[in-house]
Amino acid sequence: MPSVSILAVGSELLDGRVVDTNSNYVGRKLAEIGLKLSYIHSCDDKLEEISDALKFLSNHSQVIIISGGLGPTEDDLTREALAAFLNVPLEFDAQNFSELEALYQKRGRRLDPSNKKQSFFPKGAEVLKNPVGTASGCLSKSVLNGREVRLISLPGVPSEFIKMFDDSVLPLIHSLSNTPEIHRKSFEIFGLPEALVGSKISALKIPGEISVSYRAKFPLIQLVLKSANRELLLRYSEDASRAVGAEFIFSDRQDETMESALHRVLIERKIKIAVAESCTGGGLGAALTSSPGSSAYFWGGIISYSNEMKISHLGVKPETLEQYGAVSFSTAREMAAGARNRLGVDAALAITGIAGPDGGSEEKPVGTFFVGYSTKEKTYALQGFCPYSRDNVRKYAAHIAMDILRRELLGLSPHPDLKGE
Amino acid sequence: MPSVSILAVGSELLDGRVVDTNSNYVGRKLAEIGLKLSYIHSCDDKLEEISDALKFLSNHSQVIIISGGLGPTEDDLTREALAAFLNVPLEFDAQNFSELEALYQKRGRRLDPSNKKQSFFPKGAEVLKNPVGTASGCLSKSVLNGREVRLISLPGVPSEFIKMFDDSVLPLIHSLSNTPEIHRKSFEIFGLPEALVGSKISALKIPGEISVSYRAKFPLIQLVLKSANRELLLRYSEDASRAVGAEFIFSDRQDETMESALHRVLIERKIKIAVAESCTGGGLGAALTSSPGSSAYFWGGIISYSNEMKISHLGVKPETLEQYGAVSFSTAREMAAGARNRLGVDAALAITGIAGPDGGSEEKPVGTFFVGYSTKEKTYALQGFCPYSRDNVRKYAAHIAMDILRRELLGLSPHPDLKGE
Repeated sequence: MPSVSILAVGSELLDGRVVDTNSNYVGRKLAEIGLKLSYIHSCDDKLEEISDALKFLSNHSQVIIISGGLGPTEDDLTREALAAFLNVPLEFDAQNFSELEALYQKRGRRLDPSNKKQSFFPKGAEVLKNPVGTASGCLSKSVLNGREVRLISLPGVPSEFIKMFDDSVLPLIHSLSNTPEIHRKSFEIFGLPEALVGSKISALKIPGEISVSYRAKFPLIQLVLKSANRELLLRYSEDASRAVGAEFIFSDRQDETMESALHRVLIERKIKIAVAESCTGGGLGAALTSSPGSSAYFWGGIISYSNEMKISHLGVKPETLEQYGAVSFSTAREMAAGARNRLGVDAALAITGIAGPDGGSEEKPVGTFFVGYSTKEKTYALQGFCPYSRDNVRKYAAHIAMDILRRELLGLSPHPDLKGE
Repeated sequence: MPSVSILAVGSELLDGRVVDTNSNYVGRKLAEIGLKLSYIHSCDDKLEEISDALKFLSNHSQVIIISGGLGPTEDDLTREALAAFLNVPLEFDAQNFSELEALYQKRGRRLDPSNKKQSFFPKGAEVLKNPVGTASGCLSKSVLNGREVRLISLPGVPSEFIKMFDDSVLPLIHSLSNTPEIHRKSFEIFGLPEALVGSKISALKIPGEISVSYRAKFPLIQLVLKSANRELLLRYSEDASRAVGAEFIFSDRQDETMESALHRVLIERKIKIAVAESCTGGGLGAALTSSPGSSAYFWGGIISYSNEMKISHLGVKPETLEQYGAVSFSTAREMAAGARNRLGVDAALAITGIAGPDGGSEEKPVGTFFVGYSTKEKTYALQGFCPYSRDNVRKYAAHIAMDILRRELLGLSPHPDLKGE
């Protein structure tokens, strides 16, 4: 079983500008195949610090993944430090550079001369292509203290790092390990607090042969069960699903978003939908169009941020706004019904709320929102609440709206915490 | 200037269940007083691994903050490892324990016998009280290789760690440092690739007394200059601004987003704006309403995802769609003009594009988009291109639209890469 460590290089990690999510990603991916990182180490883009860190890690690991420091600017020193550590010169890879030039030309762009620096690699290294950016990675093998150590250098930009880790590094590590196959079941959950999910699961007394882990990514919770024992895993997965409540599990695909899960349902149903948004300002529409092919069901929407637009474009009655306010059951209902009628769709969702940080009242504190839903058969509104930041109120309200549509399409009743009138 | 490092202990950091936010917090707080973390190091709750890490870090730091491993369970081994490293026994602190007991009684709770373990500290250590939980911290001084090293152990739970770091550790570090005040200038840049910014800056031959760093957060680039020499910093900051081009620097506030910078301009100008969105699906509206108080200028918008809605709600001519297509200069212009007229605002932005991954053609490949802009005085459209993912095309197009509005409001000409007709 190979011991794997990470060296994350970059002053932005040490002065708090950036959280090191790459190491977290690697840890998670290794855990999925039954391995664990030995060390995570972060240091500045300085030759001596990188070199000291490599010395330490090479005494404790067979695979060292170095993240970052491959940019075109002068503060990027990983390739120099790596070559010095391996005691080999840096060599220019003309083919790598001309491939990059060709790629850029195809995109109608030009490489800057400073990008040339990014095609230098330690002598003897295998170049790892970067399908997303200009910083190629590389893999060097070295025998240190009688042990073979692999040093893999990848760009630090998360989208590039993750793509290259998945494509090149994970298969390598997998081939070095001979661990049994690990099976997994994931549950993507919306609408329950993490502590409640945790206590429901811990009441099941799941045996140690199955590993249980949680991750919260507002407003979603992920629960993953893993085991080499497939039969046992299946049995306890069913128990876990029952304990959490199947209606709260919107997907069994790991890391799937609510909008992507809803997309799969919508694309099957051949219905046309529209939105009417106030406090979310377009965020619900943006979520509903995040998957390719969403034009099959998403017709459009009205961002009625002002009261005037609620009246002019959705037909909300001025009396309703006056009597109940823009943030109310009645307004949400009229927004949804107006969007459905005026845009000629099968179903419409509406959101109106107080995202904050100002604008709340005793009766309707900041974080209060109403979601309207309208089809030919019925029109209703539900009240929800989110006690967090402006961003989170908007995100949560959009998720509640998507969840209402998801539950309607699947024949489930609305989330039990939402209040009707 | 004391060099400070962190050792974050816990298997949850290595298997990806938890992102190490404590280290990020410390990095940020130290940066505020002009210090920088030397190393961030994470390892498992294992005696040998903690001890190896402490050996490495003590060679490179005068202050080592250890986060985590102070819980009551058997897998919490930081205090044992710390005592072994210092070569002193663990001693029971009866007073600390009885204070904890009293605190719990006051809260109507009882300490579990396992909590007794948490009142053992390395002999000679100063106990650091935890106002939030049961895990007290401690501070030990030791002379290693002739240098005084301070080892500070804190609980890993972020709320406890942060409170104790702020109360006990930050003042200590501050008192050890007699660093001069560090001045900084940040440049938040949109519309230039990082490599080009880097080569423009490196041509300035900025002296070593000023530190220069970059960060890319798609589609934005951040450039930060820092120095204790204020005069020198100001001089080179002006050069840097000129070299990059002031029009590309949308903010001098570190980490400010484009939407927040634009918000500051809009809130002063007392104009009413609206949007018409196709491929972004509401993302531009969501960005323009992300700041509290945006209702002062944001009237609303039309999400015209379908061609029918472009006709019915924006007055785009069917002939235009037929002749030029939905993704064209003409459609973008008619969308912007339609939104401005029909919503009765001063200025409107429109976006139509091919976000992909499908739907491109040779003439208009995936990533092609058009942004329309319309006021009483003029209506025009510009063509842009983004060669990345669907998400990034949408994000980039929304940023180009915001940048067009920003440049219009500031009297700048549009981004030079955008094509007119």
